[in-house]
Amino acid sequence: MTIHPFSLASRTWARQTGQLPPRTGSNSGRCTLVGAGPGDPDLLTVKAVKAIQSATVLLVDDLVSDEVVALAPPGARIVWVGKRGGCQSTPQAFIEKLILTAVREGEHVVRLKGGDPFVFGRGGEEVEHLQAAGVQVEVVNGITAGLAGVTSLGVPLTHRDHAHGVVFVTGHAKPGSSGTDFALLAHTAQVARLTLVIYMGVKGAGQIQQALLQGLPAHTPVAIIQNVSLPNQRHAVCTLENLCTTIERDQLASPSVIVVGDVMQGLLSLHNEAHAQKLQGGAVARSA
Amino acid sequence: MTIHPFSLASRTWARQTGQLPPRTGSNSGRCTLVGAGPGDPDLLTVKAVKAIQSATVLLVDDLVSDEVVALAPPGARIVWVGKRGGCQSTPQAFIEKLILTAVREGEHVVRLKGGDPFVFGRGGEEVEHLQAAGVQVEVVNGITAGLAGVTSLGVPLTHRDHAHGVVFVTGHAKPGSSGTDFALLAHTAQVARLTLVIYMGVKGAGQIQQALLQGLPAHTPVAIIQNVSLPNQRHAVCTLENLCTTIERDQLASPSVIVVGDVMQGLLSLHNEAHAQKLQGGAVARSA
Repeated sequence: MTIHPFSLASRTWARQTGQLPPRTGSNSGRCTLVGAGPGDPDLLTVKAVKAIQSATVLLVDDLVSDEVVALAPPGARIVWVGKRGGCQSTPQAFIEKLILTAVREGEHVVRLKGGDPFVFGRGGEEVEHLQAAGVQVEVVNGITAGLAGVTSLGVPLTHRDHAHGVVFVTGHAKPGSSGTDFALLAHTAQVARLTLVIYMGVKGAGQIQQALLQGLPAHTPVAIIQNVSLPNQRHAVCTLENLCTTIERDQLASPSVIVVGDVMQGLLSLHNEAHAQKLQGGAVARSA
Repeated sequence: MTIHPFSLASRTWARQTGQLPPRTGSNSGRCTLVGAGPGDPDLLTVKAVKAIQSATVLLVDDLVSDEVVALAPPGARIVWVGKRGGCQSTPQAFIEKLILTAVREGEHVVRLKGGDPFVFGRGGEEVEHLQAAGVQVEVVNGITAGLAGVTSLGVPLTHRDHAHGVVFVTGHAKPGSSGTDFALLAHTAQVARLTLVIYMGVKGAGQIQQALLQGLPAHTPVAIIQNVSLPNQRHAVCTLENLCTTIERDQLASPSVIVVGDVMQGLLSLHNEAHAQKLQGGAVARSA
């Protein structure tokens, strides 16, 4: 795979040398919105791999890993539309115009979004706009980061003894709209026994913690998981009352998911035991 | 792949002919809990396919499609532990004993569960018991039916204008435990703008509908999707007040997911328009 943003010449060359599938023909282009999962390419669905491998143009969001993009055919046109390299992200209207133009030229456009396109991926808005412009869009699911993150810690999202269900919410609302009512969510999670998975919550963790404490006990177990499924994944486990101090102490940052609920009790106990043993070991060492 | 429940002879034969991977050796067996997704094998993750293809023993739950099981190596021992063929499902303790025995014999046991093992799959309980017995278990995520079902209708689970998040809950609680508080969930979904995805809710739809109507408007759009992602997938769209009559009229049954929320408004409008046109067409035909 070669990365040639906007390089039409390289695509013509790639087609001539058989490295890129031929165009599907005038007016028969198509668009596939693909969930790229949390990062590990092995967490892609088979359907997603097939779509990426048959793409002639890829529009790649932030949070899509290089290993996933590397599955594209050699010579496919790769357009990065995220905030990589400190640049501003590409305006949504421009992305949609790019897709429309490419589809009308007969390309198979694969729009790669981190996680699942229909879980905080704004995929719904994109599909609406493209369909309104006459483009049919296929959507391929992906493993969402909240699920993969908790699984990597060996913890289930639901458990017949601890959680009857799970809520996925965003800590970052659309500008101008009211944010998520975390106090109400906490009350509901406590009464109905639900696990809470909060996306994009690290920056607003102070407000989120305060609101959650209105409905959930201070000792509720919490995990913060950064860079889910990637080689640089990190996590911390603590209680709800220590959420912010833990984020600060361990310098956890975006992209992270915050998971709140009793399903994490076993993990928290193990963590506390290990910490106590470490302290005890330290005391012995000092007294020796 | 040949299905030989408990047939040891066939496995020895398969190993001799190279159709089955060799045992990993005494005491070095392992267990992988694999999410089989909703049914379409293309919705498996790459990691799940690799695990299935390297299995020497597969324990297969209900709701795992034959196409997924067909990915197992020829000669792998396949044990169906669901309620297929009208039999009672295999007791959980017996399943865990089977896994332990096979792992101790050096087998790679793949435990296949519909959807994701950690979303209503009781995977958490199974992992706890196996770990307590000294078996390390790897868990591979799957696409959960609620997500795939809604996606197949072209509808997102979250949308910045309609839904800040999504709740996955079960309509079927552990015997003896209190069920999900659907009235509270409905209130929360209305105030915090959440989509509700209800698993195993068709049988108890009457009670669920009554409870939901305490917190959500009667005209809230609802979809019921049966046999998600399989060739025999069916669905109906209606309003919350018509949930039960629609299930009855269309004879929708398990396995189904019920999805409740404003994200489905567009689909409901389309459905109503089509219905009105059909009625109008019928009137024209009659008047012609």
